[in-house]
Amino acid sequence: MANETKIKSLDAFFNPQSIAVIGVSRDPNKVGSVILSNTLQNQMGIKVYPVNPHLDEIMGLKCYPSVVDIPDKVDLAVISLPAIFVLDTIKECIRKETKAAIIVSAGFGETESGKELEIELKKTIKQSEMRVLGPNTLGILISGKLNTFFLPYDKSTTPPAGHIAFATQSGAMGHLLLERMAFYGVGTSAFIPVGNKIDVDENDLIEYFARDEKTKCIACYLESFAHGKNFFELCKKVSPKKPIVMLKTGSSKWGARAAASHTGALAGSNLVVEGALKQVGIARAQTEEELWDFANFLAYGKVLQGNRIAIITPAGGMGVTATDCIERTPNLTMAELSVSTKERIKTRIPPFASAGNPIDLTATSTPEMIDGVLEDLQKDNSVDGILMFSIPQPPLPVTDEQIEIVVKWARQGKPLVVGTIENRLTTECIRKYAREAVPVFPSIERAIKALQVSFERGEYLKSCQEGEKNKNET
Amino acid sequence: MANETKIKSLDAFFNPQSIAVIGVSRDPNKVGSVILSNTLQNQMGIKVYPVNPHLDEIMGLKCYPSVVDIPDKVDLAVISLPAIFVLDTIKECIRKETKAAIIVSAGFGETESGKELEIELKKTIKQSEMRVLGPNTLGILISGKLNTFFLPYDKSTTPPAGHIAFATQSGAMGHLLLERMAFYGVGTSAFIPVGNKIDVDENDLIEYFARDEKTKCIACYLESFAHGKNFFELCKKVSPKKPIVMLKTGSSKWGARAAASHTGALAGSNLVVEGALKQVGIARAQTEEELWDFANFLAYGKVLQGNRIAIITPAGGMGVTATDCIERTPNLTMAELSVSTKERIKTRIPPFASAGNPIDLTATSTPEMIDGVLEDLQKDNSVDGILMFSIPQPPLPVTDEQIEIVVKWARQGKPLVVGTIENRLTTECIRKYAREAVPVFPSIERAIKALQVSFERGEYLKSCQEGEKNKNET
Repeated sequence: MANETKIKSLDAFFNPQSIAVIGVSRDPNKVGSVILSNTLQNQMGIKVYPVNPHLDEIMGLKCYPSVVDIPDKVDLAVISLPAIFVLDTIKECIRKETKAAIIVSAGFGETESGKELEIELKKTIKQSEMRVLGPNTLGILISGKLNTFFLPYDKSTTPPAGHIAFATQSGAMGHLLLERMAFYGVGTSAFIPVGNKIDVDENDLIEYFARDEKTKCIACYLESFAHGKNFFELCKKVSPKKPIVMLKTGSSKWGARAAASHTGALAGSNLVVEGALKQVGIARAQTEEELWDFANFLAYGKVLQGNRIAIITPAGGMGVTATDCIERTPNLTMAELSVSTKERIKTRIPPFASAGNPIDLTATSTPEMIDGVLEDLQKDNSVDGILMFSIPQPPLPVTDEQIEIVVKWARQGKPLVVGTIENRLTTECIRKYAREAVPVFPSIERAIKALQVSFERGEYLKSCQEGEKNKNET
Repeated sequence: MANETKIKSLDAFFNPQSIAVIGVSRDPNKVGSVILSNTLQNQMGIKVYPVNPHLDEIMGLKCYPSVVDIPDKVDLAVISLPAIFVLDTIKECIRKETKAAIIVSAGFGETESGKELEIELKKTIKQSEMRVLGPNTLGILISGKLNTFFLPYDKSTTPPAGHIAFATQSGAMGHLLLERMAFYGVGTSAFIPVGNKIDVDENDLIEYFARDEKTKCIACYLESFAHGKNFFELCKKVSPKKPIVMLKTGSSKWGARAAASHTGALAGSNLVVEGALKQVGIARAQTEEELWDFANFLAYGKVLQGNRIAIITPAGGMGVTATDCIERTPNLTMAELSVSTKERIKTRIPPFASAGNPIDLTATSTPEMIDGVLEDLQKDNSVDGILMFSIPQPPLPVTDEQIEIVVKWARQGKPLVVGTIENRLTTECIRKYAREAVPVFPSIERAIKALQVSFERGEYLKSCQEGEKNKNET
C-alpha cells in the first residue's frame, strides 16, 4: 500500500459510518455486549450492527449471523471472539470489504500457544487492504465520537474531547492514565492501545495524529519499536510541527527481559534509545506521571522562549521550595526581576509581602493583586515563564475570580503553569483549570518539570529554524 | 531550664487539661471563634475557657474578661489577638502561671514593623517558665485529642490518629500536606507548625517526638535551623531509634534569598546541609511529595535488609516501567528469583503469565494467585522487598479479598509497598490500604523511591550497630 493510502485508510477507525460488533452475547456483562453498548452511545449517527449466529435480536437491534449478511457496507468491525474463531471472521470481513477491524481477543502472539495463530492472521491480513488494530487491545476511544472499550460505561470514565492523542502498547497502564486524565478533565483527541501490532502500529498512528487537527501533542507508551528506522525518520519529520512525548520502557537490562516476556518485544539499549529520541526532538518521559504531565503542558501550555522563571505564591514555603527546585533543574533559572517591576509590584502588595522573586503575596493575596502582578510580569523582559501557585488560603478556597484572572493571563500572556498540592481542598480547582485548558500540576516539582520540557521544546524548535536557515543560505 | 524539664514542659501542648482561648468574638467566622469551636470538639474532657472582656457568654460558655479571671489553673492559652495586644496578654498568662501558650497572631518578626515587638516578646518569655509556640502559627493538631487550628472544622479535614509526627516552618504548605494525608487517611500523631519559633523550635519537638510512643517517624519541613549545632547533635541521638525525614529548603543560592524574605531565616549552604543531614541519619526529601512519601514508608513500612526487589503485577506495562525505574534507582536492584521459586509460581499462574521478575499475573490474576506468589516470595532468600501493584482489572475494581491478602503479607512478611496510579477507580483502594497502615503510593516511581529510602534506613541502622560493636570491642 502506498504510504498516503495507508494513512488515509486509518480513517475507518477514526471516522467510521458503520460498525459491526462481532461476538455479542445475551449476557450484558460479557465483553461483546459491553462493546456493543459503548459503541451505541456514539452521538455521531454511526450505524451499529451486532453479529451473532445464535441470536435474532439484541438490545432492540437485529442481530446478523455473520458480517457478510449485513445489508450495508461495514467500515469497522470490532471482534471479541475466542482466539480460534478470529481468523475465519477476519477472512469474512475481508470478503465483505470491511475497511478496518479491531481485534479485542487475546491469546495470540503474547502467549506460547497463540504465536502460530498470530503468524497465520498476519499473513491473511497482509494480502488484503483491510487495516487491523490488535489483537489483544482494549478497544479505542475517539473523543466526542466513539468508544469501543470493553469496559462498562459506568465503571470507566473518559476524558473530555481535547488535544492529546495517546498511543500505548500497554492497555492496562494506558487505561489507568486515561482515567487519571478523566479524573481531572484533561482532554484527549484519541486513545489507541495498539495491542500486538500485527498491522496498525505506532508509526501509523503518529503519522495520522500528525495530520489530525484536533491533536496538538502526541503521547506514546512503547516497549518496543515496530519499525525502529521508520519510527525515527517519521518523528524527525513530525517533531518540528507537533510535539511527541514518549515513555519508552524495557530499555534497561532487566527491563528488556521484562518487556520480552510482556509483549515479546526487542527493546533496544537505553543509551541508544535516549540519544536517538533526543535527536529527533522527542520529549522523553521516564515515568507514567511524566508522560501525562509533559503531554499536558505541550498540548495546553506555551513554548518557553527562554529559561527565566518568575514564581507567584500566597504561601512562602511553596515559593522557597519551588525556588530550590528550579535551581536544581537543568536549564531553568530564577528570573531577576527588573527594578521597575519590583517597584510596581511593591505598590500592589502589603509591606510584609515580598516583591522579589519568588513574589510572596502572603495569605492576604487578592485577585486584584494577582491580576496586577501578572500584568507587571508580562512587561518585564527578564521573565520568560511564570509558575503561579493557586492554592486555598483557608478558610477560603481558590475563588472563581482568581481562576478567571489566571486563565486570562495564561491565554493572552507568557507561558504559565499553575502549581498546587493535590487534596480534597484543591481537586475542584485543578479541574476548573483543566477545563479551561490551562496546564495545572498537583505538585511543585511536576509543575517545574513541565516548564523544563517546554523550554527544551523551545530550544529544539530554534535549532530546527537554524537548520532551515543554514540550508536556505547554502 | 534544664533540658529534661524543658522537654517535659511541652506536655502542656500535647496533653493539656484546661485551655484558655483568648480573642474570641461574637462572629463565628472570626479566627478566635473558629479556634474555640475546634478546641471544644476535643473528646478528652479538656476544659475550655473563652476570654473576651466585652462578652459575658459565647457558645453557651461563660466568657472571662482576662486569663487571670479564670477560676481554674490554665495549662494552655491560645492567643489570636491583634499583634499589639499580645505582649500584655502574654504577661497576664505568665502571671496566671499558664504552662504554655500558642500565639496564632501574625505581624511580628516576619514583618518589618513587627520585629521590635518580637524582640520584646522574646525577652519577656525568656524570664518565665512558660513555653510559647509561634507567633504566626496555624495552631496545633494532636491526633485524636486536640485541634486548635483557625480553619473551620467543615473546611478542613484532619488525618486519623497514626504514627507520623510533623513539625513545619511553613503553615500553608504543611496544611496542604496534612489535607493530602487526610484525603487518603494516612495517620498522624501530631502536626505542629512552629511559626516564628521565638521559643518552641524544631529541636524541642524532635526531642519530644523521639520519646512519644505514638510517633514512629518524625517529618520536618524547615527553612532554617533554630540552633544548627544542637539540631545535628540531637538528630544523631534520635535517628538510630526513630527515623527523621526532612525537607530542608532555602539552601540554594536563590532559595536562601527566598527563605530570608519568607521567614528571615539564614538557611545555610546546600552541600553542607546535605552532608550533615546524611551523617546524622536523616532521610532528606527534595520535594513536598517525598517528605510525605518517605515519612509514610518509614512510619508504616518495614526496613529493607537488602536491596533486591521483586515485583508482582496484573499489568505487564506497570511491571516493565517499574523494572526500568528500579534499575535507574541508586542501590536498588531486581531480585533474581531462585529456580524453585519460579517453578512454584509457575504452578499457580496461567501458562501465558510470567513467573520471572517482574511476576506478571496478567489480567486473569486472582486473590489466590496473589496469596500463593506472596507466600513463595517470603521463602526465597534472594528477595529483600516486594513491590505489589494492586490495580483494577476492569471491569473489576481491586477486591476487598485481594486487599486483605496483601495486608496480611505486608504485616507478617517481608517489607512490602503497594503501587498504583491514582484516579477515580483507585482512590478507594488507596484509602483502604492506608486505613490498614500499609504503605501505598499513587505512582510507580514514588513507590520505588520509598523502597530506596527504606533500604538506606537499613544501611544506616547497620552502620550504627557496627559503630556500637567497634566501641564495645575497644
